[in-house]
Amino acid sequence: MKKKLNLIMFSGDYDKALAALILANSGKELDMDVSMFFAFWGLFLLRSPEHITSESKTSYEKIFGAMTPKGPEDLPLSKMNFSGLGKRMLLDMMEDDHAPPLEAFLKGARKKGVKFYGCKLSMEVMGFKEEELIPELEVVDAKEYLKNAIESDIQLFI
Amino acid sequence: MKKKLNLIMFSGDYDKALAALILANSGKELDMDVSMFFAFWGLFLLRSPEHITSESKTSYEKIFGAMTPKGPEDLPLSKMNFSGLGKRMLLDMMEDDHAPPLEAFLKGARKKGVKFYGCKLSMEVMGFKEEELIPELEVVDAKEYLKNAIESDIQLFI
Amino acid sequence: MKKKLNLIMFSGDYDKALAALILANSGKELDMDVSMFFAFWGLFLLRSPEHITSESKTSYEKIFGAMTPKGPEDLPLSKMNFSGLGKRMLLDMMEDDHAPPLEAFLKGARKKGVKFYGCKLSMEVMGFKEEELIPELEVVDAKEYLKNAIESDIQLFI
Repeated sequence: MKKKLNLIMFSGDYDKALAALILANSGKELDMDVSMFFAFWGLFLLRSPEHITSESKTSYEKIFGAMTPKGPEDLPLSKMNFSGLGKRMLLDMMEDDHAPPLEAFLKGARKKGVKFYGCKLSMEVMGFKEEELIPELEVVDAKEYLKNAIESDIQLFI
Repeated sequence: MKKKLNLIMFSGDYDKALAALILANSGKELDMDVSMFFAFWGLFLLRSPEHITSESKTSYEKIFGAMTPKGPEDLPLSKMNFSGLGKRMLLDMMEDDHAPPLEAFLKGARKKGVKFYGCKLSMEVMGFKEEELIPELEVVDAKEYLKNAIESDIQLFI
Repeated sequence: MKKKLNLIMFSGDYDKALAALILANSGKELDMDVSMFFAFWGLFLLRSPEHITSESKTSYEKIFGAMTPKGPEDLPLSKMNFSGLGKRMLLDMMEDDHAPPLEAFLKGARKKGVKFYGCKLSMEVMGFKEEELIPELEVVDAKEYLKNAIESDIQLFI
C-alpha cells in the first residue's frame, strides 16, 4: 500500500508555500499519495489573476479579494519581505542557483497528481468562488480533512 | 479503539486558533479523542478577563499580563490585522456567513470534552496562574505532551 | 524499537526554536530517536558568529548573510519582539524562573545525540556553507526528510 502525505496549507506566505510544494512534489517522486488542504490564507496560492470575479460578492468580499495576493507569485515572504524588496532579493538568489519559482512547483504538483482540497468555510467567509481557483480543487469540510489525515503517514500544518 | 487527535496550540492568533478549534470540534464529532496543548502565545486563548489577577506576580509578569490578549476574542489576526481593522472586517464577513466567532468554538470544544493541557514552563515564565485560565486545564510538561502525541493518529503544531 | 520524533525547523524565531529544542531534549530523555530538519530561516539557529565567512559568495549572499541572525541568541521573537525590547523582557522573565536560554537547549540537544539535518536547497539559495554551521549537520534533500518522517511516530512543522 502507498504511503500517504497530508499537508494543511494555512499560511499565505511565499516561502512556506515553497516548502509545502517541494514536499508535495518530492512525495509524488517517492510514489506517495499526496493530499493538500488549503485553508484561510493558503487559498491565495490557488487563485489566478485571470479568473478573479466580483460577481455575486458582498462589498467586503470584493474589497478583500482586491487587497489580497492573486496567485503563487503574488505571495509575500513570511519574514524580511520589506514591501517586496526582500522577496525580490530571494527570487534573484533562487535564480542564481537555478531553483524554479513557486509557480513551477505548483505546476509540477498538479501534473504529478497531488490532490487539492479547499476548506469550504474559508471559501465562504472570504467569498472565493470555485471558478476563481484551480479547476481540480475539491471543496471539503474539516471532517473530510480529518478522515484523510487519520489514514496518512505524515501530517503537517504549514 | 478511538482515533486520537493531538494539537499543540503555540500561536496566539485569532485565525490559527479558529483553525485549531474547528479541527478539535470536528474531531469530537467524528468520535475521536482530542487533546490540545497550549504553549507560549497559545495560552492567551484560555485567559478570561474576569479572572486576571496581579497577585504574587513580578513587575515584568504584571506588565506582560496587561499588554497581552485576554481571551479568545482579544486575539489579533496573524496577517492583515491592521490594528484590529482587518480583524473587524473578517469578523463581519464571518457573521455574514453565519460562522460562529472563536469564543463559540472554544465553548463547543469544552462542552464536547476536548482535553486541555497547559505548558508548565510557559505558564511559569509568563507568570500565568492556574486560576486565571479555564478551570479544566491540566498543567503538564513537554514529556507529558510527547507521551500523548506518540499514542495519537494525528499531531499538528499550530 | 525506539519511538521516533521528527521535527522540521522552518521558522527563525527564538520562541519557536525554544519550543522545538525543548521537545527534542524531552524526546531524548524519553529515549526516543530525534531528528531535526532545518530549512529556510531555521538554518539561522545553527550559525555561529565565529565561523561566518564571505568567501566564494555572491554579493547577494554576502548581504543576506550580514543582515540575518547569527546563531541562537540572535534570533528575534515571532511576536512582540519590539526591536529586541520584548525579547529582552522575555529573557529576563525566563531568567527569573531559572529557565535556561535557547543556546543551552541547543547544546543539550547536541550532547544528547539529536540528529541534525540541513536542507540542501535552502543552503544553496541562502549561500550558507557547511563550515559555517554546526559540524555534525548532515546536508540532505526533501526526499531524505520524507523517508525519515514516514518512519517516525510524531512529525511536526515548526
